[in-house]
This record gives sequence, structure tokens and C-alpha cells, in this order.
Amino acid sequence: MSGAGHIAVIGLGPGGAHQVTPEASAAVAGAKWFYGYGPYVDRLDLRPDQVKVASDNREEISRAEAALAKAAEGEHVAVVSGGDPGVFAMAAALCEAIEAGPAEWRALDVTIVPGVTAMLAVAARIGAPLGHDFCAISLSDNLKPWETIEKRLDAAASAGFVIALYNPISKARPWQLGKSFELLAKILPATTPVIFGRAAGRPDERIVVTPLGQADAGQADMATCVIIGSAETRTIERGDKPALVYSPRFSAPGASR
Amino acid sequence: MSGAGHIAVIGLGPGGAHQVTPEASAAVAGAKWFYGYGPYVDRLDLRPDQVKVASDNREEISRAEAALAKAAEGEHVAVVSGGDPGVFAMAAALCEAIEAGPAEWRALDVTIVPGVTAMLAVAARIGAPLGHDFCAISLSDNLKPWETIEKRLDAAASAGFVIALYNPISKARPWQLGKSFELLAKILPATTPVIFGRAAGRPDERIVVTPLGQADAGQADMATCVIIGSAETRTIERGDKPALVYSPRFSAPGASR
Repeated sequence: MSGAGHIAVIGLGPGGAHQVTPEASAAVAGAKWFYGYGPYVDRLDLRPDQVKVASDNREEISRAEAALAKAAEGEHVAVVSGGDPGVFAMAAALCEAIEAGPAEWRALDVTIVPGVTAMLAVAARIGAPLGHDFCAISLSDNLKPWETIEKRLDAAASAGFVIALYNPISKARPWQLGKSFELLAKILPATTPVIFGRAAGRPDERIVVTPLGQADAGQADMATCVIIGSAETRTIERGDKPALVYSPRFSAPGASR
Repeated sequence: MSGAGHIAVIGLGPGGAHQVTPEASAAVAGAKWFYGYGPYVDRLDLRPDQVKVASDNREEISRAEAALAKAAEGEHVAVVSGGDPGVFAMAAALCEAIEAGPAEWRALDVTIVPGVTAMLAVAARIGAPLGHDFCAISLSDNLKPWETIEKRLDAAASAGFVIALYNPISKARPWQLGKSFELLAKILPATTPVIFGRAAGRPDERIVVTPLGQADAGQADMATCVIIGSAETRTIERGDKPALVYSPRFSAPGASR
């Protein structure tokens, strides 16, 4: 065991190499061991002396522990996330593991490298739907009670926030997104734009805009970020150009309810 | 006037060249005319054939109009923002100008290039304070009533969101941040970590963490992003290493109030 152990939590952005920051690329070049969810680790173009340790999607804590144990051996370790590692990703899991773990893990050098998180990439492809106050909610009720999620959806929509939903749906959580649309439809106009953004900036990108009154949870999968406008979010039709969806910076008195 | 006009709204990230994406660098290389707030335009290292048109901080709409008019002449125009252009920045202002402007502006090619927004860069320097559900609120009451801001602060803190404040203070808006701390102190524990993050990732970076009960608005300036934890946000002391502040991914029933 050596004091020189280092662990970097690296955000790789939404998926395209053109959205990986130079800081993230340098952090990848400086590490030897790479821990992460398989599809993220597979994005890396590593040298022969660098080692991938891929794991499953639901194993954040054991992945963080394995990475910390390796760093405590004096190794240079990277934990990779898609998007930004601080948004529903590995940075919090790493902190949880450090707090619960052996004292030597607190002595490690920890670097967190931010990245472009999914909601920013999706928003950029459609206009400026996050142009005024907004929030980000993970729809996964694996880690918090569903009642907490409902309470947050209600509070955010009622106060006029635009809402970005991460982890909207999965095989194990099939009904939560549809239930969220139902709940929000009681608060927001049926015409409120809903954006389903998948693989923004990648070749298989798919961005769909639907009015809340017709939003179908089946449009989303695990890799989709769903953005629901506020009552003030607007659409600019542009003929044969794609429409722009945006939330104006200004807000009239009484516009949020 | 030509149909080939193009306008790109480019996010330059928090400030360091190492946090500018390759996509943003390519977009800068592809434009001729550069519109933006002086300090952002000044970050650009342009060729002799490229032209800077700097303007003041409070002139977003007239800047957007000037940029659109130039693009409508068939030129390749860039509008630059710090951070991400879709978060309290130029992308929404551009959409507002397009909606209110002449029909020819709707025919322009519009590209928005996302970037690392300030709250992500600040969060990365301290741990993972945005590790669970969070929101972003601009504290500027130039564009919306102060009552709307108070309502959103109350709703967000009461529902357990971490809160990132943009535009926290300026010479023309000296009291809003202190008032926000007062309001939040009625809802959140006095020990809730407050992070003042200025110039994250730049040489003049300054990151300070204070308990909400002692938070002093004088710590912030116009270039500061302030992150206020939820009741669940935790601090890991690490001896001579900087403490880590994070919001755990999990939430116990009843933990949000």
C-alpha cells in the first residue's frame, strides 16, 4: 500500500467524442485502471497498458469500493460515467463508499472531472427548454420512496420549474414515467411541450417533442432524458426547419402557480 | 441576403480551455463573427479574419438581434456564452429574438453547442453536492418578480431539492442572496452546507463551504455559483485533504419535508 493512490471520477459527456472535454481526455490518459458500467467503459480507446473493469448498471457501490481498494494499493484509477459524474452518477456513489469505508480511503487523492450532462445536450438539440429555472429529478425509486418523487414533481411543476427526468423507465420500473405524466397533467396545460431526448449528439440520436396531453411513456427507454416544460415554455414553428422549443428568461407576475 | 446564413450559440464552459469541448472549439473555428459579453468574447483566440463584437452584460436581446441580422446577411455567426448557453444564458435570448423578429430569421440554420455549466464545475471541485434531485434558480429579479423567486426557493427546499443559485448578487441586486439565506434557514437545518464557487477550474478559483446558519452573502459576487444542500447533504472530513460534500443518492422515507 502506498500514499500515492489517486482516483478520478470522469464525466465522458453524452456520448460523442466531440463532447468529451480535454480535461476528461487528459484524465483518461493519466489513469491505468478503468471502472464503470460496461457501455461507458467501452467508449474508451485505451492503450495496451490500461485495464478495463466493466460492471453492471445497478452495482454502483460495489464498483466504487473496488475502485477505491485498487487506488489504495497506490494505483491510478479512473471511474467513468456518461454525462457528468455528479448528476445521478458515480461521484455520489464514490463519496458514499468513502464515508462508509476504511480510513485509508479518505487519504486518497480524489479528482472529479465534470462533463456535459444529458439534459444540457438534449436541450441544445431543440432550442432552450431549460432557459429559465429548472430542476432535475431521477425517476428511479430504487433509492428513494415513490412518494418523495411524486412530492417533488408536484412541487416543481406547481412552482413553475421546467423538469428534466433522468432514469425515466426500465424493465424493472415500467409505470413510473406514465404515472408522472398523469400527475403533471393535473398541474400543467395539456399543450406543455415534452421532449424525449435519446443519445443526443450520437449517430443514433432521437429527439421527439409531444404535447403533455399526448405524452406516451413508451417513447422513452433507459437512455432517454425527458424534459417537461413549464406553463411558460414556447414553441417556434419554422416551416421546413425543426421547431425551436424554449423557456423565456422573463416571467410575468403570477405566471407560476 | 443569402440563404446560407448560420448562427451557432456556443458554450465555452466554466472558463479554462481544458473544459471547452472539441465541438465548441470546432464551432468557434467555423464562424467569422463573434457576439458576446466582453469577458466571454475575450477568452477566444481568434484568427485575423475573425471579428469580435463584444457587448455589455445586460444587453442579451439587442446582442441576439445584432447576431441574427448579421447571419441573415448570409454570414457565419457565433454567439458565445460562458458555461452552457442553455442555462441562464444566450440560447433563450436568441429564441426570444427569433420569435419576435422578421420571418427571415426563422429560416436561418441554428446550432446550439452545449457546455459544462457552472454548477457542475463547482460541484466537481467539492464532491457531489448535486448527487440527488436538484434545481437551478437564477436570483436575478430583473426578468421575473421577486415573489416568484421566493416561491421557488420555498418549494425546492421544502421538497428536498439541492439548490444551485445563478446570478446570486450584483451591485444593482445587493440584498437578494441574503434574503434567500434567511428564507432557506427557516426550512433547512443551520448545518446545511452552502458552497460558494467562483471561477471553478480557473487560476483564480475560490471555493468556500459554510453552514447555512453562518452563510454570508458577502462571500459571493456576480461570477459565483452558490449551491445550497438539502437536509440530507453530508460532509466527509478528511484530515489534511479537503472535505468532500455530497448528497447521497438514496433518500429515506420522510427525509424530504
